[in-house]
Amino acid sequence: MQISQRISNITGGGSDGWDVFYKARRMIADGVPVTELTIGEHDIRTDPTILAAMDRAATGGHTGYAIVPGIQTLRDTVAARIQDRTGVPTTSRNILITPGGQSALFAAHMATCSPGGRALYIAPYYATYPGTIRGVGAIPVAIPTRAHEAFQPRAEDIAAEAAGASSLLINSPNNPTGVVYSRETLEGIAQTCREHDLWLISDEVYDTQVWQGEHISPRALPDMAKRTLVVGSMSKSHAMTGSRIGWICAPDEVIDHLANLATHTTYGVPGFIQDAAEYALTQGPDLEAKIAEPFRRRRALARDIIAGQNTVSLIPAQGAMYLMLDIRPTGLSGEDFANALLDTHHIAVMPGESFGKSAAGHIRVAMTVEDSKFTKSLQTLVTFAQTLAVPSANAS
Amino acid sequence: MQISQRISNITGGGSDGWDVFYKARRMIADGVPVTELTIGEHDIRTDPTILAAMDRAATGGHTGYAIVPGIQTLRDTVAARIQDRTGVPTTSRNILITPGGQSALFAAHMATCSPGGRALYIAPYYATYPGTIRGVGAIPVAIPTRAHEAFQPRAEDIAAEAAGASSLLINSPNNPTGVVYSRETLEGIAQTCREHDLWLISDEVYDTQVWQGEHISPRALPDMAKRTLVVGSMSKSHAMTGSRIGWICAPDEVIDHLANLATHTTYGVPGFIQDAAEYALTQGPDLEAKIAEPFRRRRALARDIIAGQNTVSLIPAQGAMYLMLDIRPTGLSGEDFANALLDTHHIAVMPGESFGKSAAGHIRVAMTVEDSKFTKSLQTLVTFAQTLAVPSANAS
Repeated sequence: MQISQRISNITGGGSDGWDVFYKARRMIADGVPVTELTIGEHDIRTDPTILAAMDRAATGGHTGYAIVPGIQTLRDTVAARIQDRTGVPTTSRNILITPGGQSALFAAHMATCSPGGRALYIAPYYATYPGTIRGVGAIPVAIPTRAHEAFQPRAEDIAAEAAGASSLLINSPNNPTGVVYSRETLEGIAQTCREHDLWLISDEVYDTQVWQGEHISPRALPDMAKRTLVVGSMSKSHAMTGSRIGWICAPDEVIDHLANLATHTTYGVPGFIQDAAEYALTQGPDLEAKIAEPFRRRRALARDIIAGQNTVSLIPAQGAMYLMLDIRPTGLSGEDFANALLDTHHIAVMPGESFGKSAAGHIRVAMTVEDSKFTKSLQTLVTFAQTLAVPSANAS
Repeated sequence: MQISQRISNITGGGSDGWDVFYKARRMIADGVPVTELTIGEHDIRTDPTILAAMDRAATGGHTGYAIVPGIQTLRDTVAARIQDRTGVPTTSRNILITPGGQSALFAAHMATCSPGGRALYIAPYYATYPGTIRGVGAIPVAIPTRAHEAFQPRAEDIAAEAAGASSLLINSPNNPTGVVYSRETLEGIAQTCREHDLWLISDEVYDTQVWQGEHISPRALPDMAKRTLVVGSMSKSHAMTGSRIGWICAPDEVIDHLANLATHTTYGVPGFIQDAAEYALTQGPDLEAKIAEPFRRRRALARDIIAGQNTVSLIPAQGAMYLMLDIRPTGLSGEDFANALLDTHHIAVMPGESFGKSAAGHIRVAMTVEDSKFTKSLQTLVTFAQTLAVPSANAS
């Protein structure tokens, strides 16, 4: 009678990377006024009109089992949205509705990886990626990137690990770096997937948060639709994090198998939440732009603050709700800096190391508090970094 | 680039057992007035007061990420309910909130089975059981039961398959048979689990629907709490099928690992649904009794109808929302009978064979339409069976 190793080993034995986050939460519970710039949660709630649509659906009787692949109208709506945005022909048969993006990530790896197989992902990475791969019984293999290349992955680094791998997981716009992959980067990724016969799992949950450049879905690149599983979600685009609703867009044969898997893992998504999601999506891009706007605004404010000094530098902030700051001139690791900032100024940020060693010496700042508090906190952070940097500057 | 065999083989290659159900749905879509006595869905909707609690929670701001193991107050409420009903000391540390009972079944097998290992379950069985076990990469092994023993499993049949197995899945009150396992049955199961060092996964989602005898949770038997994972759900007890909320009650060490798994598979359950569930549970047993009452009433009506003839016999209907009818005197298989009944009288029932060969020659009738329609349909079914049985009776 033992717990399956697949589960007991899901975090890989080390820290789960959330130590600073938990420490901040404990301080808050103890009454310390901590400013949290940690998790990707909007400072607004789900729009009241979306909640009203949900209540209408529920009180209108949509409280029984919903069909497992997702209700037809929502699948149609998601397919049309993807076709509009990418130009790739897409129908409801390419869409599985899932209880959130994380569930979609897990299902996509269940479909593409076998126990003991290798699954690639890009570092720095969203905290659940390696555990999701371990959860399906596969071996996570991180592909490193470099801060001075804005964390854009190199095709040759992927190719070097591709032998025997079944899948590659990417994320653009990227959490934690805030980088949007260039067309050149994506073409290199696509070429590597074709050459090494890899499935491509493309996490595009930040696709409505692009501040600079263009979001390109790799499913739209030549010959890639048949090997790409796109993960989407309403969490970030519509501030519906707690509603747990997302999707996978994939070849119809893959969706058929994934629907079978969903029957045995989730038995579908609440119908009233699907109705709310459909309402939200049919409001069009204005609602999405409204929800993205605070991050766009705060990014501009942050760039002004960072431009006013030379200690902390900003990785090009092209998308998503995060800033990745290089704090190496302070001489501290991201972890030590984050801990010191929390202890000294009650500001919580995520150490870069939480997202893999490619982001060592960096911190991730979530732009998730209101503007004046955000600018004040960022100014404090920068000043704190300058103070730390002075001795080593003098010493050099 | 292949789809993982674990997924492509999830239904085991054969029929998924839902052919009659789908045929009925197609007839309905074509305008044929079919009476559906197939799936376990109440003929009422979720209670408006529960939906009002959900709306209050959502509009009150509980729309962000909810903590993954479940919100503390709901975990406390579920733990107290289980302790009240079973007498086993239970705290929130024993509880993981899941998006429905199916999700709990999958997670329980993920925690207890390893790829390639054997996992036992009792036939006849709920349709997703073998696929759930295949989904975690394990090998499903059905333990047969016998109609003339009211489908109560024998300990020696379990023991005969226990070598090398890691878990046993049981379900009482039982879907599809309507049988409630006796204390003697459960003590035999417990003894076998202890002797062969098996995890016991106890699906108790029908625990509020007991018409005769007593529901005993095997977690309450000597030395069993440490090796038992109980699966619970609000679907049947509170007519919240579409809300997708349930739980696992297990040793705290198992729950810790399952919470880790949940972080990587579901990222929790919507907070507003958890609040609605907590509201529903704190209404106490009166609400549960009200929701169970129609099935209790219809069971009594059915027993009267069955008592009036000698062709169709009823497996002791002790619990759950189903009747298992032995139709072997008609000379037909359950499948042929169900198809003929659907074609001739537009009444849809599930063939026993859909739940494994132990239930061959039987049909499962869900008591899920209003009383007068239910009695009329059951009377038609019985008369139809009598008509079929006459020739062979004459021939004997």
